[in-house]
Amino acid sequence: MAEVTVGMIKALRQKTNCGIMDCKRALIETDGNEAKAIECLRKQGLAKAIERKDRTASEGAMFSYIHHNGKIGVLLQLNCETDFVGKTDEFRELGDALCMHIAAACPVYVSHNDVPEDVLEGEKRIYLEQTKLMGKPEKVMERIVEGKLKSFFEQVCLLDQMFVKEPNDKIADMIDSLSSKLGEKIELSKFVRFEITKA
Amino acid sequence: MAEVTVGMIKALRQKTNCGIMDCKRALIETDGNEAKAIECLRKQGLAKAIERKDRTASEGAMFSYIHHNGKIGVLLQLNCETDFVGKTDEFRELGDALCMHIAAACPVYVSHNDVPEDVLEGEKRIYLEQTKLMGKPEKVMERIVEGKLKSFFEQVCLLDQMFVKEPNDKIADMIDSLSSKLGEKIELSKFVRFEITKA
Repeated sequence: MAEVTVGMIKALRQKTNCGIMDCKRALIETDGNEAKAIECLRKQGLAKAIERKDRTASEGAMFSYIHHNGKIGVLLQLNCETDFVGKTDEFRELGDALCMHIAAACPVYVSHNDVPEDVLEGEKRIYLEQTKLMGKPEKVMERIVEGKLKSFFEQVCLLDQMFVKEPNDKIADMIDSLSSKLGEKIELSKFVRFEITKA
Repeated sequence: MAEVTVGMIKALRQKTNCGIMDCKRALIETDGNEAKAIECLRKQGLAKAIERKDRTASEGAMFSYIHHNGKIGVLLQLNCETDFVGKTDEFRELGDALCMHIAAACPVYVSHNDVPEDVLEGEKRIYLEQTKLMGKPEKVMERIVEGKLKSFFEQVCLLDQMFVKEPNDKIADMIDSLSSKLGEKIELSKFVRFEITKA
């Protein structure tokens, strides 16, 4: 039988809002499996809420931008470590600037780590085919494909994009620079961009 | 060989921004398969843009709401049929009201059609287990499970929720009612809700 630690009980309690003894019992019954313990508590009508996927633990603020024609909307979550930094003018200016940038530059992902494997493979295949048509040696081809992949990331990943208002500034560098200045980790957690276009 | 119609060429042209003759040739080469034709055009360096998933065809407007503490943000897309309706005060009031509602009521899905099959199955299983403990006849059990499912939808689906400011008004009815009044289909296309919570 798996050991049920205080940490496990605490974690389950945070997720379900149930009493300590109920959490402990549910974990013992399910051999320490948290997902099963949640199901067990729910079956008994003790745990109620379904998990909210939209929560992130830390400080920071939300920013939004609606384009003047009303057809483009952006919502952005920018995290930092303390509420103090989250309320500084510089932090807010960065958030507003990033929202406008997203509206204009249409990024699809936050960073290149977020590009799904199949999309990445598809891109590589296409670049390889394009490059083959050039009839270059293999070493050269590899470098060309790498270059094309870099420029794909610059097109679709927010952190790799150049700031629309200052085309020499990379978004990632803008964030890092403010982070150094304010002495806190600043993280661009997530964004969405909606657009209504004519059929 | 599949027939390449004018409609197919037009659709490919819209997606790729390539010339008519290039689109036609790509479709003929790929036997009318649009996905392959796009890949073919991309391999030749003719088509560039990756598809934007954030576009919807029709009129309407974006709405956003940031809670006064800066920790909750909502972005909402409300569609209608003409730009005229999209600019009416009533349409805008509805959009603003819905944003505030979403911030307060934390819906997870737009309608119960958006609840993933596995989530739905999981809920049903839990309700069935809960109901079994009551020791009621099967017919009664079925009705109880149905009732619990209805209340689950009212908890997590925006269209099934009751408006936070007027607990007798269902969100779906509010939209239908404005739709009748303005004589146009009004569709709550999508929304996101971000929230920063303490660890």
